[in-house]
Amino acid sequence: MKTSARNCFAGSVSRVTQGAVNDEVELTLPGGQGIVAIITRASSEALGLKEGAKAFALVKASSVIILTDTSGARFSARNLLAGTVAQVREGAVNAEVDIELPGGDTVVAIITMESCRRLALRAGQAATAMIKASSVIIGVPA
Amino acid sequence: MKTSARNCFAGSVSRVTQGAVNDEVELTLPGGQGIVAIITRASSEALGLKEGAKAFALVKASSVIILTDTSGARFSARNLLAGTVAQVREGAVNAEVDIELPGGDTVVAIITMESCRRLALRAGQAATAMIKASSVIIGVPA
Amino acid sequence: MKTSARNCFAGSVSRVTQGAVNDEVELTLPGGQGIVAIITRASSEALGLKEGAKAFALVKASSVIILTDTSGARFSARNLLAGTVAQVREGAVNAEVDIELPGGDTVVAIITMESCRRLALRAGQAATAMIKASSVIIGVPA
Repeated sequence: MKTSARNCFAGSVSRVTQGAVNDEVELTLPGGQGIVAIITRASSEALGLKEGAKAFALVKASSVIILTDTSGARFSARNLLAGTVAQVREGAVNAEVDIELPGGDTVVAIITMESCRRLALRAGQAATAMIKASSVIIGVPA
Repeated sequence: MKTSARNCFAGSVSRVTQGAVNDEVELTLPGGQGIVAIITRASSEALGLKEGAKAFALVKASSVIILTDTSGARFSARNLLAGTVAQVREGAVNAEVDIELPGGDTVVAIITMESCRRLALRAGQAATAMIKASSVIIGVPA
Repeated sequence: MKTSARNCFAGSVSRVTQGAVNDEVELTLPGGQGIVAIITRASSEALGLKEGAKAFALVKASSVIILTDTSGARFSARNLLAGTVAQVREGAVNAEVDIELPGGDTVVAIITMESCRRLALRAGQAATAMIKASSVIIGVPA
């Protein structure tokens, strides 16, 4: 499978909550982390998502927000993946940041250079990737 | 109308599915392709969306994922627009890719340069633009 | 609090509309402007969002669309923040645009250079930031 989405996390479906138009689907990754996605009811049915099914979560790098200090604030975004900055690639307007997760997965984020400077991101630093559930696409393998 | 959204597809409303908070709205483009959007119930009512109404779909280029090979995988994203790469403009971190659809419309995607290299995107190549329904804004003309 | 999200608007919760999977939450900013967010029901409960609670809205710059002329068109996007372009920073593929709102807040948008040229954006020009409710993350302070 070849997609431009930089983040692809393979796991299995651990929960599906049905709504009229949208479903909430939770994947559990091999390392135990959960990824929550909001997808349409029609997609959920078409993919036959149910507990235990193999699935993967696709997330565009531009949908990822990086947190380095919450100061105790809490957020509505359902996915908070804590790790360590592995690499920062700077551009004119945007920067690409890799965050390594404890299980070995990497989350790639595109943020503005201004944010990169403000957070003083550098390799080795602790950082959390925040991803809104509605930014996650669910896929099922062939 | 002048907006920064690079993708604007004009069509007519072919279906509205109501939920408590969100509605699912489907547009049909002149070429027969469908575009599905998730918008709030309140917006759907305010715009008076119903079957047959003229409407357009706005999508930011940064919300588009490019697929070149699914290997049989299936995705929750409701919009899959198959076409041909027409142009690739490279930046330091991001690249802009134009995909021409059979009906003559063009989909513009912003992806990372790393993805651009990994998918080896070049003009003439078959590619599919994948757009999550929640990334689509619906508009109605004056 | 340190996040890479360029837009953070502090206000108080003025309305919560419940759905099965998603809730619609409206913040009112000190200047009187409203910001609507779609978040999951579970998050809304976990954050204890109710009328009058202090909260903030986080929006990635890449989720913001800029409008300069609607020609009478109306949009499903719930957040339209009218202001004045304060600054444009150009990159190879993307540009970063600051829009100052009447209340003193600034909205930062990442758009493509092509859009920046097409809209002929420059400091002093009137412009509206359009943000889909599903792109807004709600947070609550410690």
